[in-house]
Amino acid sequence: MSEAGALKVVSLLGSLRKGSYNGAIARALPALAPPEMTIEALPSIRDFPLYDADLHASGFPPVVTALAARIAPADGVIIVTPEYNYSIPGVLKNAIDWLSRLTPQPIAGKPVALASGSMGMLGGARAQYHLRQSMVFLDAYVLNRPEVIVPAVQTKVDANGELADKAVRDVIAAQLKAFAAFIRRLG
Amino acid sequence: MSEAGALKVVSLLGSLRKGSYNGAIARALPALAPPEMTIEALPSIRDFPLYDADLHASGFPPVVTALAARIAPADGVIIVTPEYNYSIPGVLKNAIDWLSRLTPQPIAGKPVALASGSMGMLGGARAQYHLRQSMVFLDAYVLNRPEVIVPAVQTKVDANGELADKAVRDVIAAQLKAFAAFIRRLG
Amino acid sequence: MSEAGALKVVSLLGSLRKGSYNGAIARALPALAPPEMTIEALPSIRDFPLYDADLHASGFPPVVTALAARIAPADGVIIVTPEYNYSIPGVLKNAIDWLSRLTPQPIAGKPVALASGSMGMLGGARAQYHLRQSMVFLDAYVLNRPEVIVPAVQTKVDANGELADKAVRDVIAAQLKAFAAFIRRLG
Amino acid sequence: MSEAGALKVVSLLGSLRKGSYNGAIARALPALAPPEMTIEALPSIRDFPLYDADLHASGFPPVVTALAARIAPADGVIIVTPEYNYSIPGVLKNAIDWLSRLTPQPIAGKPVALASGSMGMLGGARAQYHLRQSMVFLDAYVLNRPEVIVPAVQTKVDANGELADKAVRDVIAAQLKAFAAFIRRLG
Repeated sequence: MSEAGALKVVSLLGSLRKGSYNGAIARALPALAPPEMTIEALPSIRDFPLYDADLHASGFPPVVTALAARIAPADGVIIVTPEYNYSIPGVLKNAIDWLSRLTPQPIAGKPVALASGSMGMLGGARAQYHLRQSMVFLDAYVLNRPEVIVPAVQTKVDANGELADKAVRDVIAAQLKAFAAFIRRLG
Repeated sequence: MSEAGALKVVSLLGSLRKGSYNGAIARALPALAPPEMTIEALPSIRDFPLYDADLHASGFPPVVTALAARIAPADGVIIVTPEYNYSIPGVLKNAIDWLSRLTPQPIAGKPVALASGSMGMLGGARAQYHLRQSMVFLDAYVLNRPEVIVPAVQTKVDANGELADKAVRDVIAAQLKAFAAFIRRLG
Repeated sequence: MSEAGALKVVSLLGSLRKGSYNGAIARALPALAPPEMTIEALPSIRDFPLYDADLHASGFPPVVTALAARIAPADGVIIVTPEYNYSIPGVLKNAIDWLSRLTPQPIAGKPVALASGSMGMLGGARAQYHLRQSMVFLDAYVLNRPEVIVPAVQTKVDANGELADKAVRDVIAAQLKAFAAFIRRLG
Repeated sequence: MSEAGALKVVSLLGSLRKGSYNGAIARALPALAPPEMTIEALPSIRDFPLYDADLHASGFPPVVTALAARIAPADGVIIVTPEYNYSIPGVLKNAIDWLSRLTPQPIAGKPVALASGSMGMLGGARAQYHLRQSMVFLDAYVLNRPEVIVPAVQTKVDANGELADKAVRDVIAAQLKAFAAFIRRLG
């Protein structure tokens, strides 16, 4: 862990859309973090090639190793993602499929927190439970509570596309506080 | 359904690797189908761009509409896929994410069968149950039994990389027979 | 299927609580069914013993065979259930565990529809996806759409504890209409 | 945590059958634990009544509070369970449904490890992933690796019904060693 109790956390976004509502959630994180926690957004996963073991055989693409190099030193990872087809976006899963092949695997043993929003009523919950199952294989430890599941997320942003809803901001702040405690507990 | 009880089925492969063991399963399907069923392999999903709603806003990529045009007239779809990180490959999910946005959505209402193989002991089962959940949203109807789950798939192919294991071939033949009955039942 | 297109459906309730909100959903079903469909509530599962293979070895308890005898002739089954601990109630799962051992197994091959309500925001959705996975083993065919997932169900009943919310009643009516078509499609 | 690094762990069995193969797994645990860990089997859950909120309103049954009193002081919990109908047994889920209502809830914040065996090829894996989802709600932290998933478990016991298979015993020993480290990490 970083010096003097400071916690360095990175956020990974599962959407490529410029006006992504989940992007608004991700952008809201730093201001909602407890004082000892900094949260930096990881670069977009938009340039990851589709995973192909034959391509992998000739080495890891630089976008993969660059992302891993940003994740490796972090004290924790927050994954913010929409839900597509009752599961996680292929885009996000593809990034995970690449990262999982690295040695050392950058997420192994790390504390992870999840957040999702959707325009529907279930707020991306289905994606989160699938993602939790992948995290078992990756040997990440996912925070249990509070869960950040944001239904009707399009109604929770302001005219500038920023996350404005107080109740959602409050649960995110509560999650980040719990995440700080979880990171410290995992040591 | 096609004339005189003939059943036209297409297979979709979730792996890009040339020597894919799941590719061997997919190639084995036509010879194991009951006489009234033909099974054609769909083109690879390797040229699908990563799903991005901004890209989508400018129209569907031709690879997406071309694949949909092959699926639409089929009486059923068989998805053959490896498991990555305890779920379905991002590559396959990405293709589904594109296909799901089409109107008409090509898999809606269609009978679907699943098959998977893995080098480990669970044979891709975890990927299949995640895929079944996505199929709820897609409104596809997935055959229940028999399940084709092939553990240690690397030991089930011959020196030419073709599926040789008799027990696996038998369960696939049984699944295809059940799939034919299921397609007829769904009408 | 029954005469002249009539559809006989039974409903199974996953809660034992007298004032169960899911019980209110179950009681609302008959009045919301399309004209050709009758829906009868199955007896409570409260007298099922805990499943024990040693007990089973001495025969099936009469409550189990009696319930199965009510399910067997039905054209379809609707399971209405709360969610406990992010999954289906042990009470309901225990009933399924007994029923699944019968020969013939009464749910095999049958059309099934699901409904759930919860006091929380996810409406029992997590229970439904777990239940769908059990239905794969039971070889039941579960209707995809529309899903009846009722969040904050305690606000959707009237002073008499009956389901009063128009939007929820409408989606149930739509599900029952789709279920009738699904039963006919499965033949 | 207990004195001088000693770790007190309890095991919970999800089967009621006297000759349960999962019971054999549970009985094998103490001898396979690292020197600093003791593992005691919890009493059977066979006398838990079916969960009924009306019954609960008149207080917790003594079997429930007695089990909770055994779990509360433990440093960790190992759940050993068969799989029924592609999910966890109703019997086990029913016990969890009771335990989850207690204040304080005895599993909250605790390290948990899972083990399962089945006569089929998937070794109870499907039950484990459902159980993991329930553990999110219970706020337990489940060890990721190694997973103890025992297919064809009936072939892994000796004539006395005790777990004899060396490979299975080795993976259990490895899991218990990892569990000890996980308990220490969680502090």
